[in-house]
Amino acid sequence: MLNFTFYAPTLFDFGKDTAGDVGALVKRFGGSRVLVVTGGGSVKKNGAFQAATASLDGAGIPWQELAGVQPNPRSGKVYEGIGLVRGEGLDFILAIGGGSAIDTAKAIGMGAGYSGDFWDFFTGKAPIVRTLPVGTVLTIAAAGSEGSDSCVITQEKGNLKWGCPKTDVIRPKFSILDPSYTCTLPPYQTASGAVDMIAHILERYFSNTPDVALTDRLAEALVKTVLDAAPKALADPDDYAARADLMWTGMLAHNNSVGVGREQDWASHQMEHELSAFYDCAHGAGLAVVMPAWMEYVIGHDPMRFAQFASRVFGCEMDFAHPEDTGRAGIARLRETFRSWGMPVSFAQIGAKAEDIPAMVAHRREKPGAFPFGGFVKIGPDDMEAILRIAAEG
Amino acid sequence: MLNFTFYAPTLFDFGKDTAGDVGALVKRFGGSRVLVVTGGGSVKKNGAFQAATASLDGAGIPWQELAGVQPNPRSGKVYEGIGLVRGEGLDFILAIGGGSAIDTAKAIGMGAGYSGDFWDFFTGKAPIVRTLPVGTVLTIAAAGSEGSDSCVITQEKGNLKWGCPKTDVIRPKFSILDPSYTCTLPPYQTASGAVDMIAHILERYFSNTPDVALTDRLAEALVKTVLDAAPKALADPDDYAARADLMWTGMLAHNNSVGVGREQDWASHQMEHELSAFYDCAHGAGLAVVMPAWMEYVIGHDPMRFAQFASRVFGCEMDFAHPEDTGRAGIARLRETFRSWGMPVSFAQIGAKAEDIPAMVAHRREKPGAFPFGGFVKIGPDDMEAILRIAAEG
Repeated sequence: MLNFTFYAPTLFDFGKDTAGDVGALVKRFGGSRVLVVTGGGSVKKNGAFQAATASLDGAGIPWQELAGVQPNPRSGKVYEGIGLVRGEGLDFILAIGGGSAIDTAKAIGMGAGYSGDFWDFFTGKAPIVRTLPVGTVLTIAAAGSEGSDSCVITQEKGNLKWGCPKTDVIRPKFSILDPSYTCTLPPYQTASGAVDMIAHILERYFSNTPDVALTDRLAEALVKTVLDAAPKALADPDDYAARADLMWTGMLAHNNSVGVGREQDWASHQMEHELSAFYDCAHGAGLAVVMPAWMEYVIGHDPMRFAQFASRVFGCEMDFAHPEDTGRAGIARLRETFRSWGMPVSFAQIGAKAEDIPAMVAHRREKPGAFPFGGFVKIGPDDMEAILRIAAEG
Repeated sequence: MLNFTFYAPTLFDFGKDTAGDVGALVKRFGGSRVLVVTGGGSVKKNGAFQAATASLDGAGIPWQELAGVQPNPRSGKVYEGIGLVRGEGLDFILAIGGGSAIDTAKAIGMGAGYSGDFWDFFTGKAPIVRTLPVGTVLTIAAAGSEGSDSCVITQEKGNLKWGCPKTDVIRPKFSILDPSYTCTLPPYQTASGAVDMIAHILERYFSNTPDVALTDRLAEALVKTVLDAAPKALADPDDYAARADLMWTGMLAHNNSVGVGREQDWASHQMEHELSAFYDCAHGAGLAVVMPAWMEYVIGHDPMRFAQFASRVFGCEMDFAHPEDTGRAGIARLRETFRSWGMPVSFAQIGAKAEDIPAMVAHRREKPGAFPFGGFVKIGPDDMEAILRIAAEG
């Protein structure tokens, strides 16, 4: 186990009818004038917006809305939010929605008190040392941004989908997690969220660090929970128990509790960022296409780790003479699981084209330190192209 | 899953040579004059005291030591510490040691700013609303107090070993966890700590709350980690990987990450408190005696939960016709495991006497709301007597 720091000081208020606590929580964490960040309007259909803003009103806290954040959130809304915060003297940002609303809120929080372009924090030109406080009312179980130290924004100038450096400074002050709000999610989005969680766990699981028995087991516990709960939520969207398991797992999958003390990979996320930059696909859907392809490409690097995954998570019988075969069986089970949830597992299913692969690799090069990437296996341009070719076939 | 709040804002600084960070961390959390709380002197033999105080010196932070905290920490040292803090105008409390030093530090933190007797917080006469900041340098993996919301002190007047009400207010600001310091622990104390962790997990695992698949799996992952790591640490005290697994598991076992959203039990801890009040045995040793006895007594309440425990944790083959037999096999495996670690599993092995059982039950009655206790099965005086009689035999 490597040395590590773990500092996750977000207050989680989990369960039914918790959105009414928003007013008290904003006050507790020092907010007095709130920017409410929302997406395309689903939070008004499921009632989260009304419950949260009624709570702000009840607490006598004025608020203004920044609506219209899109999936794969864009820099434009960040600039707009920064302008609102400065113009109106707001001191707290409340995201109501999923990862896109939350990441937009985080980026506004970084940029509001900074004289330059908020994108400087993403290029590394400026270090993130402080932020306006952010709270969340989560309505989509997927991205884990409600408890995470990360934030991903697409800079429209150049169509660059980048994450800022991870830092505890941007973890939300509080997050309200009411699984009921996720019951109205369409099946595709439910499944997409489940894939995103599994990817967040596996990006940490596939590691070269020795002696990580504890985080291995915790990671396996989380993946198994998603494998149990996701099909239940797809079969019965109102299954509260399944929704609750998915919501809390989504947070744990990305607050780094299963990633401490070990090198992490993140190659699949890097490649998915190109897919969603090119085709604006759902993040989870892009991951369902890319991740099994990545696994097939790198299995030879550590067949026993893949065999452990297959055996412990999917209950594949261990082939002691051919551990790599056990590992391959696990990858096949994972891809089949994604398919059974209605997720795409090939380029065609997300409208991607094999002939764009060289352009995606070239686009990746625009990022500082673009290659190699990946902590488990170093991925160069040729590797990326090969993995995307596997993903194209599915 | 029940509604819950989870707020664990402790910064963990984990790994080799982290004690040198103490000075910076005390400053970060607002400390300028420190009370250093220590136990019987082992922290001076293993170097933790020297490393931490050198760091305070290096940061120009004055400190005073309160030494001599004993296992099952007593109220006397708490009163002494409160006097020192007030007399010297100290504003931060740093525990260097295990759960006893940390719980003493927490109790001093509660009492220092309170005009009445700190024991009022334990009897419920006063609510805990604020405390002096507490940091820790952990040298024993066991109690989990380094990340927990709880604190147990023995009031010498009446020999009452009680916990205060759980509250996030008393979670440490930071905890430095260097597994190296635990390599010098005697085998008995290593094993005792491992039992304590398992008990902290199982007090949460045995629950009547339905739909707790996620926390069940996380709890099982932690118990399996202890079962893997403890015999390695006993066989080779310098096995850093095993020590690291035990240290981080000990924190997770008691920061409530596996207890959220579910009723908890805690009956075994309540009964063990009487054992250690009467015989001053190591907490883990007392738990090794009591917990399997409690399990045998209550298995009929939910045989399937015990079968799940036996099957998932110990790999016992499920007897589908007789699930309770599978559950009993798991209890037998647990007791045998404790025995194999050199832990006591009967009264005689901790110097306890069956004839004292009525006196222990009578002593328990002095606690407000003494009976019934236990969230999984309600334990009355007759039940407590019956369980202790099973424990007496082992």
